[in-house]
Amino acid sequence: MVENNILEKVNFPQDIKQFNISELNELAKEIRNVLIKKVSTTGGHFAPNLGMVEATIALHYVFNSPVDKIVFDVSHQCYTHKILTGRKSGFINPESYTKYSGYTTQDESEHDFFKVGHTSTSISLACGLAKARDLKKDKENIIAVIGDGSLSGGEAYEGLNNAAVLGSNFIIVVNDNEMSISENQGGLYTNLKLLRDTDGKAENNFFKSLGLEYIYIKDGHDIELLINTFSKVKDINKPIVVHMKTIKGKGYEDAEKNKESFHFVAPFDLETKKPKNEVTQETYTDITDKFLSEKASKDSKVIGISAGTPVFAGFSSYRKTHKDQFVDVGIAEEHAIALASGIASNGGKPVVSLGSSFIQRSYDQLSQDLAINNNSAVIIVNAGGISNSDVTHLGIFDIPLISNIPNIVYLAPTCKEEYLLMLDWAIDQQDYPVAIRIPGKEVIYSNEFTEKNYSEINKFKVTNKGEDVAILGLGAFYNLAKSVAEELKNTLNINATVINPRFITGIDEELLNNLTNNHKVVVTLEDGVLDGGFGEKISRFYSNKNMKVLNYGAKKEFTDREPLEDLYKRYHLTKELIVNDIKNIM
Amino acid sequence: MVENNILEKVNFPQDIKQFNISELNELAKEIRNVLIKKVSTTGGHFAPNLGMVEATIALHYVFNSPVDKIVFDVSHQCYTHKILTGRKSGFINPESYTKYSGYTTQDESEHDFFKVGHTSTSISLACGLAKARDLKKDKENIIAVIGDGSLSGGEAYEGLNNAAVLGSNFIIVVNDNEMSISENQGGLYTNLKLLRDTDGKAENNFFKSLGLEYIYIKDGHDIELLINTFSKVKDINKPIVVHMKTIKGKGYEDAEKNKESFHFVAPFDLETKKPKNEVTQETYTDITDKFLSEKASKDSKVIGISAGTPVFAGFSSYRKTHKDQFVDVGIAEEHAIALASGIASNGGKPVVSLGSSFIQRSYDQLSQDLAINNNSAVIIVNAGGISNSDVTHLGIFDIPLISNIPNIVYLAPTCKEEYLLMLDWAIDQQDYPVAIRIPGKEVIYSNEFTEKNYSEINKFKVTNKGEDVAILGLGAFYNLAKSVAEELKNTLNINATVINPRFITGIDEELLNNLTNNHKVVVTLEDGVLDGGFGEKISRFYSNKNMKVLNYGAKKEFTDREPLEDLYKRYHLTKELIVNDIKNIM
Repeated sequence: MVENNILEKVNFPQDIKQFNISELNELAKEIRNVLIKKVSTTGGHFAPNLGMVEATIALHYVFNSPVDKIVFDVSHQCYTHKILTGRKSGFINPESYTKYSGYTTQDESEHDFFKVGHTSTSISLACGLAKARDLKKDKENIIAVIGDGSLSGGEAYEGLNNAAVLGSNFIIVVNDNEMSISENQGGLYTNLKLLRDTDGKAENNFFKSLGLEYIYIKDGHDIELLINTFSKVKDINKPIVVHMKTIKGKGYEDAEKNKESFHFVAPFDLETKKPKNEVTQETYTDITDKFLSEKASKDSKVIGISAGTPVFAGFSSYRKTHKDQFVDVGIAEEHAIALASGIASNGGKPVVSLGSSFIQRSYDQLSQDLAINNNSAVIIVNAGGISNSDVTHLGIFDIPLISNIPNIVYLAPTCKEEYLLMLDWAIDQQDYPVAIRIPGKEVIYSNEFTEKNYSEINKFKVTNKGEDVAILGLGAFYNLAKSVAEELKNTLNINATVINPRFITGIDEELLNNLTNNHKVVVTLEDGVLDGGFGEKISRFYSNKNMKVLNYGAKKEFTDREPLEDLYKRYHLTKELIVNDIKNIM
Repeated sequence: MVENNILEKVNFPQDIKQFNISELNELAKEIRNVLIKKVSTTGGHFAPNLGMVEATIALHYVFNSPVDKIVFDVSHQCYTHKILTGRKSGFINPESYTKYSGYTTQDESEHDFFKVGHTSTSISLACGLAKARDLKKDKENIIAVIGDGSLSGGEAYEGLNNAAVLGSNFIIVVNDNEMSISENQGGLYTNLKLLRDTDGKAENNFFKSLGLEYIYIKDGHDIELLINTFSKVKDINKPIVVHMKTIKGKGYEDAEKNKESFHFVAPFDLETKKPKNEVTQETYTDITDKFLSEKASKDSKVIGISAGTPVFAGFSSYRKTHKDQFVDVGIAEEHAIALASGIASNGGKPVVSLGSSFIQRSYDQLSQDLAINNNSAVIIVNAGGISNSDVTHLGIFDIPLISNIPNIVYLAPTCKEEYLLMLDWAIDQQDYPVAIRIPGKEVIYSNEFTEKNYSEINKFKVTNKGEDVAILGLGAFYNLAKSVAEELKNTLNINATVINPRFITGIDEELLNNLTNNHKVVVTLEDGVLDGGFGEKISRFYSNKNMKVLNYGAKKEFTDREPLEDLYKRYHLTKELIVNDIKNIM
């Protein structure tokens, strides 16, 4: 156990300005040990933070935060920044380990300027800080810290292009660790390699081609070199890129070797190196991977597309076994969707797999490039649903986002088996763009549904024919619908109709009309925000008829790491609360 | 009048392959005259098409469409392509002038591959064609034609970055006319200038930095040079950029001189050069321009932001009088929103002005960069509403897009006066991101509303207190609500309650609850798609109460240049049809 002799003297950035280089190096060592201990205990972004220890120390040594403003891209590499800006306790004291968010947030500190969790946004946001500074005729330094992996996103490029003509102080620190979450993808990375190989001296320079000044730091772990270089660019009167080479996972051998698996870690034991909670259950990621591998082996037109997250998206082994039928476009969701549309229009069978929170980045491509052209691309939407996740990674908005675009068929399977039947159908049909929402975080198993053909669009499935109350349980909430029905039976002796809607993008008018014959209440359950969602379509349908409707789902609000049980309670998403509401209305 | 001696022999691309260079030059001359006559008569994209005549002829001379596939970015420069691919009549015969869309569409021809109207998409879409070709082991050429103005968009960059590693035939023709719709904006354009100034020989080369091969054409109107160069790159086995210099508006002097005003023209007389339909009425564009100019003069923190369309967005004179308080980021809507968030967070007062169809390009920035951070940026949404526009430019989706994001306050003024009161309040308040939806295409005037403060969020305004029926007329449809009320009075002697909701993002629960006392029917009217929109929120609110609701708005469908009257009839958006529906339900 290393003592934190230096770190214990540090609470705020000004505390490190008295140290000499050797003390700063010692500080880096102590922080690195703190990070390894903390993140291995709680899980979190491991390798990205180990790579930024020295650079963050040097930034705070040279610049005067929060007057000078540092904006971290994605901000999952901000742990050292948090330690140096008043939040040390959350990394040193095990009892405070969960006190702070894993991302920057202005709720925690005046040294944080934005809540950030999506990639490629730092340059644009920091440009805004700079522009406002210039309006006010202030003089502080504005610094955007962005990883090479984030540079594949269009927003970062739009920011670079505009930053180049800002005409005032603006410092873009490119933290080049030769990695995105996975390997970097795209032509840009040959240029970054060339720049690294030539100590930044190559004439052919992406940043210079955009009109930006440029300086290279060959060792982003050399605090003295970092301090000297940052001091040089401090108070510069124009935009400049500081391109520094770092090692992702620096200082933890396994992480340096396996950068991808150490990007984000689950809790693990530092001694045995084994995960603390061994995951033995199957995941949807495994299921997608296995299914697509088999499908692609049988059909050479199938092609998987990931936007920088192949493991999360279900291509972990697929990408190795089907290299010619796989594209990782890097973190570039817009391109992923447009590419898929182009592939489908020329006879290929593209399957894009994205997270619910990240498909937001491609709304215009879903609408213009894909839906207007009605090409039969398939999109798997992962991690949708109400959750205790960070505010920047919520999965509740994909239903309003996707389901209100014409032409797209958005399917909500209720379990693994139905998911695979739908996926199989979606890949082979050629009539619609089809999106499929993975049901729930943990795998749901059931043999209740065996339909292979979903070409009768918007046909809901009645699984129990009852009366008085009908419950529509969308996707992962189908099982909740069944338990509500059971509870109704037990407490009120009502034999409720249970329905698996299957389609999110439209309504089964015939079935809904028939319900008016012997039902008084229709209940909708969806694992997402109510506003603009599925239930409202049902409410609208019945709004001029004699039917009471109760819509259940999430409130339109940003939640941040709130326990799921609290959310379910607030949204009345338990069988008891729902049955009570039904009782009150009948 | 020039006779079309050569053009009359041309119907399809193969017809031009027999011509020699002098005949091709003659063909270009004839096509140019046809374009000038046709577009001055009907209006349309003028200068972009004049700049692409020779290059399009050369492309079709060298490549073998539709086996070889040419994808036009934005596709507003595709008129020569249409003339050469079976659609000549639509440009030569005045009676057929409106027969074809101004954009490419696979509904018209096998030579068109996508319906395209937004910028920066061609490289990604064409990448998809190329990838599918490779899967099928086909060999055709895939060509993306993209203007320099489109290169500022992030999707184009994501496409370039991925195209560079495609590893097979892919030809990107960059049509560099030194212009976007307005002047180009951003660091990239200093590089394009350098390349033009050095005949493509400069070492510092944006395209090469992304790992792409590169070739330069110094005169994009020299058919022989074009043919020679395209022949060189034909069947190439890797991605290459063909950077050609052209003149926007080539061959029509006024257009060459005033490229921005001749980008898109209203019908004008070729003799007198005067507009055929003189516009004398005030437009919302003028109103925004005048208001923001005055506001910015009084408050140095106000800053206007345009994404490549300063005239359309209401900055026509503002940009000249308030240079230091204006940013045109180029066609880069993602950056525009994130930039605004950054400015607001540092004390500035940013006002972004975008079209309804284009705000789609920044959903993730609205949600993550702006709404989660709850910064008080202001967004003006232009050209929203049901219209006869092209399918790629519909304005009906902004309500579901924006109104279902937490924190954003989306306002719907009913007239010019209310718009400016809301805009004034929005700029000065510091509590929310505020979006404002311009009411209608033609300016609506009224002195009915004089409220200056909108901080009581989601408070609806009752303007006539009646009974039995309440009508909520959102934004531009407030006047329709009033005429429905009048019609109800006249035909059924019902004194209906009339309400201006003002807020799109939430409901006035107290008011809606009070209505249940003496109302049986609530009618909602919105100038946008119903799915995910405002009316559904009202339906949901009343879904468990004794109230009938009728929601009016657009159906979830893509319409393409359909007459507005047809749409209004289909959607029951006339006072007679609505009153009839009310009668049937009561």
